[in-house]
Amino acid sequence: MRKHRVAIELYYWPGIQGRGEFVRLLLEDAGAAYADVARQRKNGLRDMLRFLEGEEPGALPFAAPFVKVGKAVVSQTANVLAYLAPQLGLAPKDAARRAEASQIQLTLADFVGEIHDTHHPIAGSLYYEDQKAAAKRRAADFVKQRMPKYLGWLEKVLERNRSSGGQWLVGSACTYVDLSAFQIVEGLRYAFPNAMARLEAKLPRVIALRDRVAARPRIARYLKSKRRQPFNQMGIFRRYPELDAPAPRSRRR
Amino acid sequence: MRKHRVAIELYYWPGIQGRGEFVRLLLEDAGAAYADVARQRKNGLRDMLRFLEGEEPGALPFAAPFVKVGKAVVSQTANVLAYLAPQLGLAPKDAARRAEASQIQLTLADFVGEIHDTHHPIAGSLYYEDQKAAAKRRAADFVKQRMPKYLGWLEKVLERNRSSGGQWLVGSACTYVDLSAFQIVEGLRYAFPNAMARLEAKLPRVIALRDRVAARPRIARYLKSKRRQPFNQMGIFRRYPELDAPAPRSRRR
Repeated sequence: MRKHRVAIELYYWPGIQGRGEFVRLLLEDAGAAYADVARQRKNGLRDMLRFLEGEEPGALPFAAPFVKVGKAVVSQTANVLAYLAPQLGLAPKDAARRAEASQIQLTLADFVGEIHDTHHPIAGSLYYEDQKAAAKRRAADFVKQRMPKYLGWLEKVLERNRSSGGQWLVGSACTYVDLSAFQIVEGLRYAFPNAMARLEAKLPRVIALRDRVAARPRIARYLKSKRRQPFNQMGIFRRYPELDAPAPRSRRR
Repeated sequence: MRKHRVAIELYYWPGIQGRGEFVRLLLEDAGAAYADVARQRKNGLRDMLRFLEGEEPGALPFAAPFVKVGKAVVSQTANVLAYLAPQLGLAPKDAARRAEASQIQLTLADFVGEIHDTHHPIAGSLYYEDQKAAAKRRAADFVKQRMPKYLGWLEKVLERNRSSGGQWLVGSACTYVDLSAFQIVEGLRYAFPNAMARLEAKLPRVIALRDRVAARPRIARYLKSKRRQPFNQMGIFRRYPELDAPAPRSRRR
């Protein structure tokens, strides 16, 4: 009898892509053997909660996602990615470039936090309906100021990266931050289709990066599989038409 | 004539502690030679803006703080700390412990973001007065749920760290994350004195850590110096009594 060994255990809330998806994209692109514990294992969610409640050894996660690799428990999405990617061949080789990847990932993490807060500006513990007025105000600023600022910054980072001819965000090859940038474009297209339709013409490099990632063979297979959960109204990216920009003229006709 | 060489240039907005303070505490505790460019140099603020506007080479920062060390431009507070601390002797030695330090620092960064958003829940570009009603709702949830959750988590991290007898957050010696935890306690005491007065009895290890950091000779000297700017109503930690918990009974009498 052969013992089936799974090297990496991913722990994240079942039913949503959420922050776990950034880790899944890395694992899938690398073809890594991993278990999505709370989705795949009997009692997996209970096992996840044991870590969050401090009943397991290792570094104490404040929140999911976290991974367990051997005895190491590693949490905080950007930290999980920076920890795993070098082992999976999806990080830059030298320290300076790794710091560059990390600063991009952390900026994407801030962006994700602001995207989340468009529908939950007051408290994660309240329903959207109970903070809808504040959400409308926050989303209006987000769509007008923050979203173009973050995406424009990504466009500039690509433009400045001559070592890849503007193809990848850091260095000369695809790294984990490119996969995360893909996910953000996908999520924004789902949550803010009108605002994205207006912006995309100004983001040729970001959109080409999105297409380049989507065409990677393992990513393409993953996106078609059942392992890729659809976006929904429970995750970070939610489609509330009242939070999006108005439809562009050509669409309204 | 001897050329005075400053190894590390820190770029951050003058007039506030802000996120730059987490970097300052590391540099000060290490006794590092650094320039606080926008505060100390003629045209320093203009020089900082050149980086943010993409007019300088190197990795493009999305926001301050960032540092320049040789040719490397490193941004995102947690990334700056993770980059500098090993060179300054204030990071754990091995990779697993460094990932542990990073996950703590990133959780503190999330905490700082939530602290900021108590007074700016709608938009950073609006005045507090224009989002005061939302701020009151967000701060009420923060004081009741989030602040005890984050601080309680820090207390547990200390409790679980047997390699230092609960004295430091990671490993057996002081690292950059301990300095950041100190700053958060100081900031919360300034911004939410009533809420902190209620919580501190449940946080013996966190408060002892704060005292341990404050007593480090270089930190003690720094805190008395003019380089340490006072907290004020422009930074992340702001004292708006209407956002704090009610005064404890003993104080009201």
